[in-house]
Amino acid sequence: MLNFNVQLNDTASIVEIALKEMLQKQGNDLMSAPIRHAVLNGGKRLRAFLVIHSCNIFEVQKDTAIQAAIAIECLHAYSLVHDDLPCMDDDELRRGKPTVHVKWDEATATLTGDALQALAFELIASLPNTDAIRIVELLKKLAKASGMQGMVLGQAQDIQAEKSEVNLNINDITSLQQNKTGALIEWSAISGAILSNHDDRKLLDYAKSIGLAFQIQDDILDIEGDAVLAGKRLQKDVSAGKATFVSLLGIENAKLRAKELIEEAIDALSDYGDKAEPMRQVAKFIIERKM
Amino acid sequence: MLNFNVQLNDTASIVEIALKEMLQKQGNDLMSAPIRHAVLNGGKRLRAFLVIHSCNIFEVQKDTAIQAAIAIECLHAYSLVHDDLPCMDDDELRRGKPTVHVKWDEATATLTGDALQALAFELIASLPNTDAIRIVELLKKLAKASGMQGMVLGQAQDIQAEKSEVNLNINDITSLQQNKTGALIEWSAISGAILSNHDDRKLLDYAKSIGLAFQIQDDILDIEGDAVLAGKRLQKDVSAGKATFVSLLGIENAKLRAKELIEEAIDALSDYGDKAEPMRQVAKFIIERKM
Repeated sequence: MLNFNVQLNDTASIVEIALKEMLQKQGNDLMSAPIRHAVLNGGKRLRAFLVIHSCNIFEVQKDTAIQAAIAIECLHAYSLVHDDLPCMDDDELRRGKPTVHVKWDEATATLTGDALQALAFELIASLPNTDAIRIVELLKKLAKASGMQGMVLGQAQDIQAEKSEVNLNINDITSLQQNKTGALIEWSAISGAILSNHDDRKLLDYAKSIGLAFQIQDDILDIEGDAVLAGKRLQKDVSAGKATFVSLLGIENAKLRAKELIEEAIDALSDYGDKAEPMRQVAKFIIERKM
Repeated sequence: MLNFNVQLNDTASIVEIALKEMLQKQGNDLMSAPIRHAVLNGGKRLRAFLVIHSCNIFEVQKDTAIQAAIAIECLHAYSLVHDDLPCMDDDELRRGKPTVHVKWDEATATLTGDALQALAFELIASLPNTDAIRIVELLKKLAKASGMQGMVLGQAQDIQAEKSEVNLNINDITSLQQNKTGALIEWSAISGAILSNHDDRKLLDYAKSIGLAFQIQDDILDIEGDAVLAGKRLQKDVSAGKATFVSLLGIENAKLRAKELIEEAIDALSDYGDKAEPMRQVAKFIIERKM
């Protein structure tokens, strides 16, 4: 795991540098500071890692892969900025730093998210060395994954669940998770296949498994994690009385289920040989991470 | 003007039907009702009108034009839903109906705008009968026009101006307007040229003039307009002590300037003959409209 952590950090550094360079090219105006604050937050860059290594399997050019990777990180950053708003999850900290609406205000946070969504699509539309047909395919899938049948729906399902008296069952929270976080993880994992016009079904199976395992591990860390390490409030699901994978399965069964899912994810990569090794490693990392 | 009003209403009806059909295909889930409320609001559909008639000049297929037209209306609707939020303009009425955050709540309004932005890009990425290279060009321009160097920047400039002690001068409000509303009007007016791979400079000149005239007329209507007809609060700029084209130029000079701009816009269309007649008519409509 130590070696893999190094690899994950190396990729995160490359992504951070690429994001900085890209944002510098966008010029310096009213929106620059909150956008930088939202994007350059030292995250794990899990989605970017998946894009880069999915692209590597299919020999997509490196600069193409990195630009697709920073696009998904912009889209993810937009979703976090909006999720943190007082009318949504009302979070004041994100990776140990004040959230955008705390450091600036709610209007700025709304606009920051809006701008980052547009930027993500702009980056995909401008992918270097890529046939326009491939760009259009990837972009269509990004729009679907992030919109009213993907991430936004998942967020709406989450809010509805919080308000409702009725607790969700395991199918409900699986569907909620699949929309809220799974759809972007899937997009990231299949991106290399889409860009190189290859079959994406095995990668989709892989992504479905790691996406679900990721959420189960999040629920486990919400109970067992370290708030300082995580840089955010923990046990908020528990204190809100929300149904989670842990509350429904029990913590030991939740851990078992996550482990099974990671085995399934690794099996789905069997066709791809050594080049898929980073994607196998990241699958294991998902359930071994502490933050 | 009567005949032109009929034509504008006919186009708006076609756009309304196309929007309804498209939203039906998106299925029925948690986000459907607020999205329908935001999009199907009986607006003038000025941006859609520009897209359809810009496409007609260059003989872009009708179904392609209509899909591009409904995409820009989704994007415009997203911007209105977010602009109406309490942290932004805090408006309770839009075309005489309660705004999304009033009818639902702020979280739903935030998500509705987010979903509509994604939907706009999805619709452009899925344009029928269109070469992928043309789609990518149009999409890149839409992302730029709506993002941190376009519409979002304009909204941020507007908010900053409201907070600032220093009143804007005519260059400042021209830049603000060009970003906030001009960029999407420009995109709409040039869309036909982009989709057919023709030079877009004349249409860009046209669009810059009508965009500015549109804002001047808005400022005039904010003083002289009828709140019932407009379906929204009027004189809010005056009561907020904001600099507007009217407060800086005086109402008579503002009217003269708007008229000049429309003449310039019509001149810019001289190459395009009869097919550009609806775009000339809509330019005149912009300064003759009462709402």
